[in-house]
Amino acid sequence: MGSSTFALVLALALVACVTPAERKCLLSGSWRSDTGCRMVVSVLGEDGSFSGSYLPGPAVGDYEILTSPLEGSQQDAGLAPQPIFSFTVRWRLQDSETARTTVFLGQCYVGTNGEETLHSLWLLREAAESPTEDWKATRIGTSIFTRIK
Amino acid sequence: MGSSTFALVLALALVACVTPAERKCLLSGSWRSDTGCRMVVSVLGEDGSFSGSYLPGPAVGDYEILTSPLEGSQQDAGLAPQPIFSFTVRWRLQDSETARTTVFLGQCYVGTNGEETLHSLWLLREAAESPTEDWKATRIGTSIFTRIK
Amino acid sequence: MGSSTFALVLALALVACVTPAERKCLLSGSWRSDTGCRMVVSVLGEDGSFSGSYLPGPAVGDYEILTSPLEGSQQDAGLAPQPIFSFTVRWRLQDSETARTTVFLGQCYVGTNGEETLHSLWLLREAAESPTEDWKATRIGTSIFTRIK
Amino acid sequence: MGSSTFALVLALALVACVTPAERKCLLSGSWRSDTGCRMVVSVLGEDGSFSGSYLPGPAVGDYEILTSPLEGSQQDAGLAPQPIFSFTVRWRLQDSETARTTVFLGQCYVGTNGEETLHSLWLLREAAESPTEDWKATRIGTSIFTRIK
Repeated sequence: MGSSTFALVLALALVACVTPAERKCLLSGSWRSDTGCRMVVSVLGEDGSFSGSYLPGPAVGDYEILTSPLEGSQQDAGLAPQPIFSFTVRWRLQDSETARTTVFLGQCYVGTNGEETLHSLWLLREAAESPTEDWKATRIGTSIFTRIK
Repeated sequence: MGSSTFALVLALALVACVTPAERKCLLSGSWRSDTGCRMVVSVLGEDGSFSGSYLPGPAVGDYEILTSPLEGSQQDAGLAPQPIFSFTVRWRLQDSETARTTVFLGQCYVGTNGEETLHSLWLLREAAESPTEDWKATRIGTSIFTRIK
Repeated sequence: MGSSTFALVLALALVACVTPAERKCLLSGSWRSDTGCRMVVSVLGEDGSFSGSYLPGPAVGDYEILTSPLEGSQQDAGLAPQPIFSFTVRWRLQDSETARTTVFLGQCYVGTNGEETLHSLWLLREAAESPTEDWKATRIGTSIFTRIK
Repeated sequence: MGSSTFALVLALALVACVTPAERKCLLSGSWRSDTGCRMVVSVLGEDGSFSGSYLPGPAVGDYEILTSPLEGSQQDAGLAPQPIFSFTVRWRLQDSETARTTVFLGQCYVGTNGEETLHSLWLLREAAESPTEDWKATRIGTSIFTRIK
């Protein structure tokens, strides 16, 4: 009976050791999108806010995109293991007068191997002249980001 | 001839008086959406950033939405007459454990009467358990806001 | 007592007369969108399928849109009072080689006055060269249609 | 000189043999989505129309999805090498009274190895009670399909 109690205690201790602390996702760091773009995210503020830079990849259009600033925040500042996040990129373009802004809305998932993946949908808007032109102002798509080590 | 010059100068002066300075849109103030929600936006920061509150309207679902904080920014901090804007609402919900976030992306149009209208598309995400559940996490729709006087 | 019974029967009869048969929405007919486009929808097939034409409104872009064919169907072929519908428009364009297709997905609502309104979201895709260009292929927006009498 | 002419002719002949006829994408056949769903598409009609079945994958929700019919069409009935396509799935659900419909809009890309990939965006709508509930009726996402051999 003593030995079975000991075995139980030992088993519990092993579980405690083997079970890792639950890995939480933080957006700080460098990420690469499935379309080859990169982004660098600052250390998070206490309220979960962050800033950073978005660097275009090969999938550029007929205008040249420059490194562009981003601003966003993640839910619960590191308390949620798989937080929702959102950020806005105001595009800096060479040779273009038209303002373009993208908002990303996504969630950070942590795989069984501890790897973080950002799944997001985005809306991209170009400035339009008037409400009658507004119907064609917005594009939509998805981006998946993985951490650059 | 002296009098016709005088008339011309007078005419130009009248035009200058009657033609208003081009009306520029600022998001600061109180707005009502076409679904009956209200939002209050703070005075803009120098960089175009703002904060505020989103108050739900009658179109509530089965959970009760509380007044929720919003954070965003508008393009060019008052230099663009019809600026693009974006903001994020982190929903505060009564009796719900699931995190919900909405991002709005839109443009402020100024009518010939000087009235401002915000045309926007939004994405609403609920936290999902895992990437295999991610496909159903995001809703989409539009909102049009007019200023509450 | 007899007279009160009679009054009750009369009241019920009046309710029965005044309450109209539940109005069901059918997509057949002519509709105008909130952006000024018109569409004409054929008589529905037994399975709810329909064809028709989409006529552009004033909100045209830099290319000229011609009257374009549409194909779609509505849910339950007239059994659902407020059916979901979907249809596809393959755009015929003057002076453009790029294929463009729009899908509409919406629901027909019947107001208390019996008026039908179609609320829809749409996706518009332009043909892209390759998967690396695919990210910018799709636009999104909403359309609301009312019946032309 | 005669021999060099012969060599040229031979080289051209070899090129003609080795260079395949440009591979064109047809939607007919069986496909698997990146979320593990399968779909079977019929032989195309002369106008590019098709029908088929959509079989759910592991990413099911709290309701059970049954094999559901799909109807659609592809652009230019086999003339475009990388055609746009669209199709509608009317979901058959076990234990659910709420109608659900998805529209897919995408393009078929042919890789350098001749492999076809379908890139698509979709809208999923659930029937709503009234226009005031309409705002939450529509979900959005992407699907990528590869051919099952």
